[in-house]
Amino acid sequence: MHHHTDPAMKACIEECLRCYSVCLSTAMNHCLEMGGEHVEKKHFTLMMACAEICRTSAHFMLVDSPHHKHTCAECAEICTQCAEDCERLGNMEECVAACRSCAQSCRSMAH
Amino acid sequence: MHHHTDPAMKACIEECLRCYSVCLSTAMNHCLEMGGEHVEKKHFTLMMACAEICRTSAHFMLVDSPHHKHTCAECAEICTQCAEDCERLGNMEECVAACRSCAQSCRSMAH
Amino acid sequence: MHHHTDPAMKACIEECLRCYSVCLSTAMNHCLEMGGEHVEKKHFTLMMACAEICRTSAHFMLVDSPHHKHTCAECAEICTQCAEDCERLGNMEECVAACRSCAQSCRSMAH
Amino acid sequence: MHHHTDPAMKACIEECLRCYSVCLSTAMNHCLEMGGEHVEKKHFTLMMACAEICRTSAHFMLVDSPHHKHTCAECAEICTQCAEDCERLGNMEECVAACRSCAQSCRSMAH
Repeated sequence: MHHHTDPAMKACIEECLRCYSVCLSTAMNHCLEMGGEHVEKKHFTLMMACAEICRTSAHFMLVDSPHHKHTCAECAEICTQCAEDCERLGNMEECVAACRSCAQSCRSMAH
Repeated sequence: MHHHTDPAMKACIEECLRCYSVCLSTAMNHCLEMGGEHVEKKHFTLMMACAEICRTSAHFMLVDSPHHKHTCAECAEICTQCAEDCERLGNMEECVAACRSCAQSCRSMAH
Repeated sequence: MHHHTDPAMKACIEECLRCYSVCLSTAMNHCLEMGGEHVEKKHFTLMMACAEICRTSAHFMLVDSPHHKHTCAECAEICTQCAEDCERLGNMEECVAACRSCAQSCRSMAH
Repeated sequence: MHHHTDPAMKACIEECLRCYSVCLSTAMNHCLEMGGEHVEKKHFTLMMACAEICRTSAHFMLVDSPHHKHTCAECAEICTQCAEDCERLGNMEECVAACRSCAQSCRSMAH
């Protein structure tokens, strides 16, 4: 990333891209293979919404828009919900961890 | 779009995709060709941020996430700022109109 | 879209954004609700890949990159496969029509 | 990423997301600040097209679509052109390195 980017933002961009990768990959591999409640509309939509807001928040930080504070706030909220729903289903530890870590980073970036 | 989608949301998705198209195309064609204040960081970043939030809000409505209310609220805010900045520069009527129309549609979708 | 954009490209951008909207919305609403073979990995992945390449091809035309010829060629190929798979499952006429129409438009744009 | 993902694909996803980040951030910070030939349409469009195809190729690998071979082939081509154009302008070493590294990884993934 560009050399002017501050370290906290740089770390948050990486958290967002990692959480995007884990959520999308888990939904399209693990959840589709498991079936059942893993492909119920509420859970699967939350996984896809989480992947998308992470991708978008990273984008806003990369283009250096001051509105990244708002996308990061929304990202923290969706990631937290996604972590809780993955915990409820069980056996999705990698996704839970990526969401919690991204939520924390985005929350501090939002202030 | 899917036949269950309500007409107001359907219209808002179309407004968002239209505003995304106009902002991105105008930035990458009109603004790069004009140069000067059209490629100053503040204006150009606002154009790109506007295109991205419009693309994302359409995505949230298409996947039918309840969080579309928050992305639409943010979209309305960025579109309004983008319309004002395009008005300030002048000769960007198509972009001003697309942003104002999208802002109005997103604002009502956010409630 | 920007006034310099030629009419054929303008139409292709609209076809791509419409096919993106229909595929994503149908996958996340119709397919998740139907379950069964609609959420089998092969079909669902094809729907999501189709939505993504349509979104990307529109983007390449909007930024006016000469590489849009290659993304449009790939888009035509994926749309054709997606139309065939939706036809096989049945009761997905809107998606079949959007994919066929987008494939045709992208194929002519690719030359 | 999902535990079934093979190591070479995992590495390629990371290369793509890194090149996406570097190209987008460099365009929107370094290039807009430098002005002159950095914001000429041909160079700037290539930077944005490179960011977009990297983002898309990562997405295709994450959703585990067999069409990732085609998006990776296109990604390798655009990254190579982008590296050459950044080299021509000079003082864009980070971008040159990210593009070359991503091109190599995508080329081997395309076979």
